[in-house]
Amino acid sequence: MDNGVSSSASQTTSPSSPLELDKPQCNCGVVGAYNHRQAAAMTYYALHSLQHRGQEAAGIVARRYNYERQKFYYYTHKDEGLVLDVFDEKVLTEKLEGNAAVGHNRYSTTGSASAANIQPFFTTYRSGGIALAHNGNLTNTVALRKYLQYEGSIFQTTTDSEIFLHLIARSKKDSQTEQIRDALQTAKGAYSLVILTDNALYAARDPHGFRPLCIGRKKNDDGSYAYFVVSETCALDIISAEYVRDVRHNEIVIIDDEVVKTGEIKSFNIEDTTPEARHCIFEYIYFSRPDSKIFGYNVDRARRKLGKNLAGESPVPPGTSGAVTVIAVPDSGNTATLGFARVNHKHGFNTKFEIGLIRSHYVGRTFIAPGQDKREFKVKTKFNIVRGVLEGRKIVVVDDSIVRGTTSRSLIKLIREAQPEEVHLRITSPPVKYPCKYGMDFPSREELIANHYPDEQGIGDELGVDSLCYLSFQGLMNSVPSGDGIGYCTACFTGHYPVEVDVASGKLATEE
Amino acid sequence: MDNGVSSSASQTTSPSSPLELDKPQCNCGVVGAYNHRQAAAMTYYALHSLQHRGQEAAGIVARRYNYERQKFYYYTHKDEGLVLDVFDEKVLTEKLEGNAAVGHNRYSTTGSASAANIQPFFTTYRSGGIALAHNGNLTNTVALRKYLQYEGSIFQTTTDSEIFLHLIARSKKDSQTEQIRDALQTAKGAYSLVILTDNALYAARDPHGFRPLCIGRKKNDDGSYAYFVVSETCALDIISAEYVRDVRHNEIVIIDDEVVKTGEIKSFNIEDTTPEARHCIFEYIYFSRPDSKIFGYNVDRARRKLGKNLAGESPVPPGTSGAVTVIAVPDSGNTATLGFARVNHKHGFNTKFEIGLIRSHYVGRTFIAPGQDKREFKVKTKFNIVRGVLEGRKIVVVDDSIVRGTTSRSLIKLIREAQPEEVHLRITSPPVKYPCKYGMDFPSREELIANHYPDEQGIGDELGVDSLCYLSFQGLMNSVPSGDGIGYCTACFTGHYPVEVDVASGKLATEE
Amino acid sequence: MDNGVSSSASQTTSPSSPLELDKPQCNCGVVGAYNHRQAAAMTYYALHSLQHRGQEAAGIVARRYNYERQKFYYYTHKDEGLVLDVFDEKVLTEKLEGNAAVGHNRYSTTGSASAANIQPFFTTYRSGGIALAHNGNLTNTVALRKYLQYEGSIFQTTTDSEIFLHLIARSKKDSQTEQIRDALQTAKGAYSLVILTDNALYAARDPHGFRPLCIGRKKNDDGSYAYFVVSETCALDIISAEYVRDVRHNEIVIIDDEVVKTGEIKSFNIEDTTPEARHCIFEYIYFSRPDSKIFGYNVDRARRKLGKNLAGESPVPPGTSGAVTVIAVPDSGNTATLGFARVNHKHGFNTKFEIGLIRSHYVGRTFIAPGQDKREFKVKTKFNIVRGVLEGRKIVVVDDSIVRGTTSRSLIKLIREAQPEEVHLRITSPPVKYPCKYGMDFPSREELIANHYPDEQGIGDELGVDSLCYLSFQGLMNSVPSGDGIGYCTACFTGHYPVEVDVASGKLATEE
Amino acid sequence: MDNGVSSSASQTTSPSSPLELDKPQCNCGVVGAYNHRQAAAMTYYALHSLQHRGQEAAGIVARRYNYERQKFYYYTHKDEGLVLDVFDEKVLTEKLEGNAAVGHNRYSTTGSASAANIQPFFTTYRSGGIALAHNGNLTNTVALRKYLQYEGSIFQTTTDSEIFLHLIARSKKDSQTEQIRDALQTAKGAYSLVILTDNALYAARDPHGFRPLCIGRKKNDDGSYAYFVVSETCALDIISAEYVRDVRHNEIVIIDDEVVKTGEIKSFNIEDTTPEARHCIFEYIYFSRPDSKIFGYNVDRARRKLGKNLAGESPVPPGTSGAVTVIAVPDSGNTATLGFARVNHKHGFNTKFEIGLIRSHYVGRTFIAPGQDKREFKVKTKFNIVRGVLEGRKIVVVDDSIVRGTTSRSLIKLIREAQPEEVHLRITSPPVKYPCKYGMDFPSREELIANHYPDEQGIGDELGVDSLCYLSFQGLMNSVPSGDGIGYCTACFTGHYPVEVDVASGKLATEE
Repeated sequence: MDNGVSSSASQTTSPSSPLELDKPQCNCGVVGAYNHRQAAAMTYYALHSLQHRGQEAAGIVARRYNYERQKFYYYTHKDEGLVLDVFDEKVLTEKLEGNAAVGHNRYSTTGSASAANIQPFFTTYRSGGIALAHNGNLTNTVALRKYLQYEGSIFQTTTDSEIFLHLIARSKKDSQTEQIRDALQTAKGAYSLVILTDNALYAARDPHGFRPLCIGRKKNDDGSYAYFVVSETCALDIISAEYVRDVRHNEIVIIDDEVVKTGEIKSFNIEDTTPEARHCIFEYIYFSRPDSKIFGYNVDRARRKLGKNLAGESPVPPGTSGAVTVIAVPDSGNTATLGFARVNHKHGFNTKFEIGLIRSHYVGRTFIAPGQDKREFKVKTKFNIVRGVLEGRKIVVVDDSIVRGTTSRSLIKLIREAQPEEVHLRITSPPVKYPCKYGMDFPSREELIANHYPDEQGIGDELGVDSLCYLSFQGLMNSVPSGDGIGYCTACFTGHYPVEVDVASGKLATEE
Repeated sequence: MDNGVSSSASQTTSPSSPLELDKPQCNCGVVGAYNHRQAAAMTYYALHSLQHRGQEAAGIVARRYNYERQKFYYYTHKDEGLVLDVFDEKVLTEKLEGNAAVGHNRYSTTGSASAANIQPFFTTYRSGGIALAHNGNLTNTVALRKYLQYEGSIFQTTTDSEIFLHLIARSKKDSQTEQIRDALQTAKGAYSLVILTDNALYAARDPHGFRPLCIGRKKNDDGSYAYFVVSETCALDIISAEYVRDVRHNEIVIIDDEVVKTGEIKSFNIEDTTPEARHCIFEYIYFSRPDSKIFGYNVDRARRKLGKNLAGESPVPPGTSGAVTVIAVPDSGNTATLGFARVNHKHGFNTKFEIGLIRSHYVGRTFIAPGQDKREFKVKTKFNIVRGVLEGRKIVVVDDSIVRGTTSRSLIKLIREAQPEEVHLRITSPPVKYPCKYGMDFPSREELIANHYPDEQGIGDELGVDSLCYLSFQGLMNSVPSGDGIGYCTACFTGHYPVEVDVASGKLATEE
Repeated sequence: MDNGVSSSASQTTSPSSPLELDKPQCNCGVVGAYNHRQAAAMTYYALHSLQHRGQEAAGIVARRYNYERQKFYYYTHKDEGLVLDVFDEKVLTEKLEGNAAVGHNRYSTTGSASAANIQPFFTTYRSGGIALAHNGNLTNTVALRKYLQYEGSIFQTTTDSEIFLHLIARSKKDSQTEQIRDALQTAKGAYSLVILTDNALYAARDPHGFRPLCIGRKKNDDGSYAYFVVSETCALDIISAEYVRDVRHNEIVIIDDEVVKTGEIKSFNIEDTTPEARHCIFEYIYFSRPDSKIFGYNVDRARRKLGKNLAGESPVPPGTSGAVTVIAVPDSGNTATLGFARVNHKHGFNTKFEIGLIRSHYVGRTFIAPGQDKREFKVKTKFNIVRGVLEGRKIVVVDDSIVRGTTSRSLIKLIREAQPEEVHLRITSPPVKYPCKYGMDFPSREELIANHYPDEQGIGDELGVDSLCYLSFQGLMNSVPSGDGIGYCTACFTGHYPVEVDVASGKLATEE
Repeated sequence: MDNGVSSSASQTTSPSSPLELDKPQCNCGVVGAYNHRQAAAMTYYALHSLQHRGQEAAGIVARRYNYERQKFYYYTHKDEGLVLDVFDEKVLTEKLEGNAAVGHNRYSTTGSASAANIQPFFTTYRSGGIALAHNGNLTNTVALRKYLQYEGSIFQTTTDSEIFLHLIARSKKDSQTEQIRDALQTAKGAYSLVILTDNALYAARDPHGFRPLCIGRKKNDDGSYAYFVVSETCALDIISAEYVRDVRHNEIVIIDDEVVKTGEIKSFNIEDTTPEARHCIFEYIYFSRPDSKIFGYNVDRARRKLGKNLAGESPVPPGTSGAVTVIAVPDSGNTATLGFARVNHKHGFNTKFEIGLIRSHYVGRTFIAPGQDKREFKVKTKFNIVRGVLEGRKIVVVDDSIVRGTTSRSLIKLIREAQPEEVHLRITSPPVKYPCKYGMDFPSREELIANHYPDEQGIGDELGVDSLCYLSFQGLMNSVPSGDGIGYCTACFTGHYPVEVDVASGKLATEE
């Protein structure tokens, strides 16, 4: 969709297409802060530590109480770019005043950039101001939008996140908590939400809990607690807050002026009956930061197990007797690779972990000269190969996943420039065969390379490696925590979608 | 209202205060273009020629039909600044494509600047896309906003102009024309509107017709007509379009694909009964451009009469026998001053029109060094005095009006630097004693200098002139056209408001 | 010359072409301030009032003495754009500290814009820091540049103004005043200079005194004088400084810490013998501001005489008996037009001065839509015609000069849109037939319309007027002051150049 | 030095202080390209891969031959910021045309930022255009600058790099090569230079060859060679050019239109006698990229040896029996750490290499909230700790060097947040005790932590570690290549400076 957005950052732009929605709002980072006198600054640090969840745009809405006028003021600052670029000292200290704030990092999706779509969204309705940041993707967007427009709502953005605001404003309930519960019962799909109002900071996860969200706190000088709600625990670490607990699936959490004194978080269910959780298993494989705890478990530990289990299934290339150099695709693959190398070594193989690829610290949009292969060049500006480590060796490259395969192919080509003897590829997840409908920006089935070849051999040939092995689905499930009520969404591997997307009829269908 | 808007133009900002509205949306310029293949460029020129109606911000929404996808796309570009600065070639030709457009110039009001409030507003609702630009000020804003919020509407701006969009979207009528009529019957006060939808370009003036709006057209190469709706006729001149007629008070005009072929404009009443017109008389005195025709009459001619009638009432200072130099405060006072000087001369007085003040062409925000009198300095950077014309002479300065009096005082002080023998001030309108409630940004009664002194003598002393005379109210009324059904809003002079502002109760009261 | 300068203002750019020089550095404004604690702010106001002398770029260098380190620091700020846009409060108060400053406005010349060429230039040499601003154009640039390069000088700009710095730095004299005198004796042509060093503020005018320059002062609180050197007296008015005297032709003036106490300005000759002055007569006709005193005489008064003398030579069109409306091309033509109309009236003709053209206050680069005549459109965005004044009348348009004739033609066409009965053009100067070699940006002989037709009739036909009359050369000379030692450069009318331009040989030739 | 540079990037700024020089021009990256039709784009990629050598500013000068006018044009684009931010497609393809270019990355030094100081420098002199980029630091700057100013040179920057241009322009030799040789014999200290003129691309390294510089080439479609001169070989890899050889110390290399056909590089000595090389040993320890070959040897391999030799000298903490986790400070320490861990393991210690610190990919200037410890926070935004790897373990952290110690202290504090049992620090270089005078931005002796404590125990206590060991000087020398004529500058460890800095007298002293 060409929506007429100017590249000039100094121009405000509104959405243009009345009926065509954005691609799914993809994996993003959300933050809420309550009862901290530097709420915006804390939100800024937290967003920075969640930068890996979205690099396209960032925004913060801060709430300040004006004692003289006895009412709340909300201040918004948002723009395209990285967190450190969007905000500066002046904005954080002079503009975004107040002791409560919500923030959002937006993931880059091709062609759907629009200034108006940058979150958090702020509006006013009969119960006062309301600011909202959303990670996830609704499945009944089309039906809800049609319904709301029929009822006279007007839309400022092409995101499904705006729908929440309309649903809340239209709820006939008196209590704001009930209005929010009303709205969340109507919206279907994946959402981890933070909502800031005149009354409280609300946090909610959809009934299946696809995307992560957790609560932290920190004691203020006056003995009260500052509370934080963030996508991953690494965002609590950076502001030295302690982890309290996850927001549970099917839960609305309320942090208000009472809670900051008592320390007792208020909580409501969204649906009366809580279904089994369907945590996104890809958060463990790739998306979350290794130093985070997700769904209550260390990401780093899960990744190490993925590597170990892969080594158990597919160790050094068959028929290899001599020395093998194991390298990671940094940084997501590092821990898994160490696990892989170590188990191999333990099993008596002559494997050695080496650093053969270095990730560039200076990222950005690169000009591609005419005549250059675009993807190859991007890989070249993102990764440096350490020739001395690769030249003449048998190499096993460990990566976390293959989606389209285009980046992998370019990377393998780059590695081959160092003239290794052999290049083998090991993937710490099963083949990705189905698009994600809950917020991960996966392409359509046709674009997924695993749907183009009958087996690993075919894909490996296409990528230019001497051998390719994926981790088995069972190997994946053995690597992540299990237990009562813990379940995963594995739709991208299995095609089994916990909540169906309802496009045409407006009806809503849930698993089984 | 401090609404937390950053001065950084590259940041998008949302409104912040839920309940406090902007100051009245003041005198602005609006433009609509339909069936012209350079609709955005024509709108841009028209806005440029209406720049005097608002210098704070400008915006254009263009509409393009995508034949492949068989639907309309709307492209918005708006920013703070002058028309020539906000738009450039790239924006006008690449971004704002399409053969229909609406545009808006916004007047600068202290402290209420917010990127989100820049018009035109665009949104989507069940009947498709809709873009709207508004000149004027509603009188039942508070009641309507409360009502709409109660019904579940959420607000993106603090302007009363957004209310139209909600009212249209909420109308239960099927036809878009009826939806708009519905909305306009509910909104009270002053509005000259252009509205662009998937179906047509709509133009409307409130039942009293406070603010001007007129229609022009131009033949295209294919024989069809391009239509334009603009605030003043000078905007038709710049694009070489012919003046067709004014949009009448209480009228909704429709320009659609049928009209451009037949040349027969469609028209509906807003209220069933059309009240007497209440044209803003200040448009003749000061606001409109002298080369425009307003409410069907040349502004230049009206101003000349103002000057002549003033000369009839208050010629050269009493007791003056020698030569008198008459100078204008450029540019609005020029024509009236010529009229004033000529009548004096005809009456045998030794008056000579001279150019004693030159207006600077290089305007902008001026830094005021500490220790400088702010207002004096602004006057000094805006006007140059021609010493040779003023030194040792008896001077009559002719100006159009006095509001706060602060600028006049500084100007007189500047003129006195050239050491004239005497300085007399003549004003081509009566004393301004009441604020405007229909879109002119007049200050409160307390701030109006005419309310601080019992007579002209007192005001003149305060301003530092040897004598001061205003035009009488009757002299004013004799200067503007009269006739059947032609009436004026003269509230700023008389306090007689045609439509009362309804703040508290939400009830709506009309004259008589 | 395409010198590869990016339009992006945020990028620094260096000159590109080693051998091809800029077009003549055209008529610019220069300012110097000494011993004022807000030197940069005063320079800023003065530059703003000289904005008509150059709109392309502006710059200020301020000098601050650091008592702790016991040395001078110089701070530079310059950029493309108008004075009010280039500087803001932060720059003027925080960056440009110090009690002495020099400033420069640059005239726009097609295609030669380069950030590196923006003045003032600052550099360091063995006698300390030196900042220089130059109005005028050297005539032996090529020879000097070749010589300096041969001696090992390296050039940072393509301006002839940089040559002064090299000449000063290379002088073998010990005293800085002698170094400057040395340099000025070598440079030939037109220069009005302000130079700020560790020792003093220097001001100088070339031996013929082509371009204006004058001195003003203002008493400080401590009894010392703040001194100012500016291109026109209007720049003294804006900062409320008193006019002391002109810098004389062939004079170097020194303002140092002694002068500010004694009030006695130090002065040296450049050449031992002072030739007759050759003031640019065009400053009276068009370039200077009407409220300035130039070469010791009011510009406004000179222009009025031009109009009166023109009326004596060429009153109303021959054969005209009825009423004639006289209008000016604002703003430069206003005073002359009043003079013209009044003399006509005195002679019994039925002429009436009217305001038929209004100059737009909102200037800037206008986008021209494809299919539009570029020049016509520019005229249309610059001038508004007042239809009521022109329609059906016999019109005499009074303008100051015709150069290429293209703007005049478009303007006449615009006036004809109002359907006057006749349009006659009267010019308050003789035909321009020769390019200026001393700093005015006149085109080559081929481009001057007066060289294309044998008489006024031919030119008038080309411009589309019913008759055209120029002021005679004698009429011109009768309008400007005369007396002992007062002479004018009239080369653009007569081709008689006081100083020849020496391109090829490097030899320097002066008037006979 | 406060040099009055505005933070506003859109303003051009000149140097301000006449006599105070910048801090040493620090370690930078330089690039030259010759005979490639996308010379600017190639330079851009090369600069991007050298981004680690300087992040403050970047610039490119491109040279294009205009066949019509038969002369060369040079186009400059430079600005503060990272390479990917400073250049975009428009600049690279439309502005920086031509088949030859030079580029420069500038290192950030506190407080000395000035737009005018951004390289490459371009100027014109009697032999035509000349563009120059310099990595290194001269030692006789003050004397040379004084001498040149005495001779009449004027300076545009405060860098020592500009001195080269003046020396070349002043040389009395006819041949450009001899002019350059003349200049280089006069300049003393460290320089790796690329110079682009109308005749050729020159590259030169000072007689001791402190800083690296190497030559690469690539065959064009027409059979001729494109040549490249770059600081490190990684810049050849990114543009797929083959490494030819290093520019040798004391060598001037010429690439001209003859060379690109024959493939035979022209070469001259600077001094008649070539001294022993004095390669900067710190390039191996820290500065160069691990995937580069520097001074003819793989950086990665040298770092591995540093780690191994350190393990030989100082293995696991004395008295440690149990498991020890070895972690690197990424990315510079990675390879050395692998070497360290492996040798330890080989010696029978129970050491395990783990990834306990992850470097953030999103770097930039971070706002520090009031009350935060600035340095701690910077470390926190730069490094993420992986809690699971560190908690309860005995940790050995391997880093490359300690300068001030402040960052190390903050990093150790951050690691301690994960509650390891013990934290030991191992450094793969000896204590840094002396500032660098040849281009590395080391602080003064007082600021170096190693000068504050008598032994490692004291420093370790200060840093908060359980033990600290440096690599011995002998261990360092054993890690880098040795051989005939290969020598190192180790002044920062030993205080033995190969070329003395001559400040006061202007005399030049060399090692003897």
